[in-house]
Amino acid sequence: MNTSDSACLSQRLNALTTLMRGEGLDLALLFDRDNIRYFTGFRINRVVSSILAISPAEGATYIVAKLDLNRAKRDCWINQIIPFPEDTPNYLDALQPLLSASVRHIGVDKDALSLAQAEYLNELAGDHSELIDVRALTSKLRVVKSPQEIDNLRRAADIASHAMEKVQGAIRPGMREVELSAWAEYLMSKEGAEGSSFEPFLMSGENAWLPQRISSQKILREGEMALLDMGAIYKGYCSDTTRTFAVGEVSARQREIFRVAREAQQAAIDSVCSGVAACDVDAAARTVVKDAGYGKFFPHLTGHGVGLSTHEAPIIDCGIDMILEPGMVLTIEPGVYVPGVGAARVEDMVVVTDSGCELLTSAPRGLTQEKE
Amino acid sequence: MNTSDSACLSQRLNALTTLMRGEGLDLALLFDRDNIRYFTGFRINRVVSSILAISPAEGATYIVAKLDLNRAKRDCWINQIIPFPEDTPNYLDALQPLLSASVRHIGVDKDALSLAQAEYLNELAGDHSELIDVRALTSKLRVVKSPQEIDNLRRAADIASHAMEKVQGAIRPGMREVELSAWAEYLMSKEGAEGSSFEPFLMSGENAWLPQRISSQKILREGEMALLDMGAIYKGYCSDTTRTFAVGEVSARQREIFRVAREAQQAAIDSVCSGVAACDVDAAARTVVKDAGYGKFFPHLTGHGVGLSTHEAPIIDCGIDMILEPGMVLTIEPGVYVPGVGAARVEDMVVVTDSGCELLTSAPRGLTQEKE
Repeated sequence: MNTSDSACLSQRLNALTTLMRGEGLDLALLFDRDNIRYFTGFRINRVVSSILAISPAEGATYIVAKLDLNRAKRDCWINQIIPFPEDTPNYLDALQPLLSASVRHIGVDKDALSLAQAEYLNELAGDHSELIDVRALTSKLRVVKSPQEIDNLRRAADIASHAMEKVQGAIRPGMREVELSAWAEYLMSKEGAEGSSFEPFLMSGENAWLPQRISSQKILREGEMALLDMGAIYKGYCSDTTRTFAVGEVSARQREIFRVAREAQQAAIDSVCSGVAACDVDAAARTVVKDAGYGKFFPHLTGHGVGLSTHEAPIIDCGIDMILEPGMVLTIEPGVYVPGVGAARVEDMVVVTDSGCELLTSAPRGLTQEKE
Repeated sequence: MNTSDSACLSQRLNALTTLMRGEGLDLALLFDRDNIRYFTGFRINRVVSSILAISPAEGATYIVAKLDLNRAKRDCWINQIIPFPEDTPNYLDALQPLLSASVRHIGVDKDALSLAQAEYLNELAGDHSELIDVRALTSKLRVVKSPQEIDNLRRAADIASHAMEKVQGAIRPGMREVELSAWAEYLMSKEGAEGSSFEPFLMSGENAWLPQRISSQKILREGEMALLDMGAIYKGYCSDTTRTFAVGEVSARQREIFRVAREAQQAAIDSVCSGVAACDVDAAARTVVKDAGYGKFFPHLTGHGVGLSTHEAPIIDCGIDMILEPGMVLTIEPGVYVPGVGAARVEDMVVVTDSGCELLTSAPRGLTQEKE
């Protein structure tokens, strides 16, 4: 980690500390791995947990599994790092030294610590203390991305786009769904991804219009439509992109479904601009789908924010009035799923700018068809 | 799903219902994905959540994301399936119909629902209700595996063993850590894995003795020791295995570290038998390491139960007095990590039997060395 990185991470921590003071918090205990990475810059295995404690008075303490202690001391910019034992129920005892009698208002990310952890923490902290949700504060800091964060998201998007292009060139009737999604995942790792930002899935035929959202051993058949949804992690930042494939020759109706989904996506992308409300971007997509007569076949949101988490604010859906700002990064992914016919979705990532948006994902957006 | 599968799943549900009656529970709400899969047999994308409600009076209700509803209705044996909306804070409202005034004692897996979910649930259920930890009940059912579960674990172990053997044959100085772990993951998917049971990692040289627990872009250098830890998921069941590699020629001291780790593992495997306490298996390994003078270089547990979760009961560590029973499936994985020298760990999966144990993982256990 170079000095400019740690200066940037230190600034983030100062910004949270300022917000904490405004809310009267004596301590924040972050359990969410994406929140923790935002402030520590430190990567740990996705099945391992850690806790970041932030005190406006005492600074930050990073609590890591005993086996991660040496590496955290070597690689993480935070000075105070302490270990907890794994595979034992009382590992939160490591927090005891931080919970003095003067700690009354404790911020936690309430969607990330479990009820078991919360109950144990309440016992450690005593009756005089209270757990207060801190998600609004961390989200406020994370929702607009810095130029460096956008660079990381751009790289994550590039990695996924390159893998997608290779799949676009390779897909044929007779292949298995899982064969292609596993290959895409491998391609992303080879190009520098830390891993997949979520379990990638290729769904074809009936699986696509159900939809299935997992890759199966099903074989792709001539005349089916298939969707591949996947993303890479680069320096913690996630990409998320979808393309639709025609497996061999598809019907005019299937092409129409694709055209509607793609036009809805383009309308939504064209509507993205600083100052626009999230729900208005959703409406731009939904209007196209509805006007084409497919309104009831678009059963999900139009998009979502993406950053250290694959799904984060702002959610792009009806009823969400968050105003877009320059530096927010979004996916735009309306879809049309018609039972008995087929499904189509094209998903791209965009950065909001003052005058519109910039695309981060780049694989061809047309209905990919087998080359003759 | 065939009829015998659903009969087996139905029996599991009946067994839980009997335990719930014994504890006076009116309802169980399971949030843990592995618990849910144990009773539903239904696979969902690893980034998607669902909830299983079990009432001794009314039977089971499976609450799934709206987008998973059609597939759950097609593929899941449970009759009552209802949807919840995603990406909205109030999705737990879908539980309201299940929370009648007579529901007072609600079992939840307290390590799986978040504090935010618990608080929302408490509001929905009202002041007369109480959330009670149900983990002891589900663990009691899951800790001993049925013959069919052991078949699935055997297949998961086979998939990982075959991938490991290919890595053993391919590893060379000059390769990157991530190149090999990503390839292993791809090989497992091609052989029928649903995915990796955890983020696989290959750690070499200094990364191995720290230890690092993630794969990096580091290049394997002549004279280093390297460890690959990985596992596959097959029908929800996880495997977990580790092998140690000599990258080119290694020193006599490095070979000694390997010999100690392997002998400790064999001593632990030899001690596994129905009726033995988990801590005695741990002691068998720890004694070998200690007697060889490396006691302080063995910083973790000796092993853990493995099933639908990668880490589950029984934990094989000092202080754990759970008695092994036939049908429990364990990993055995003592390790030795010496700063400046190297690290070694060999991890296998075993099924406990009346007379000892049976190995499930099969890749060669020696110190893999580059072929001349």
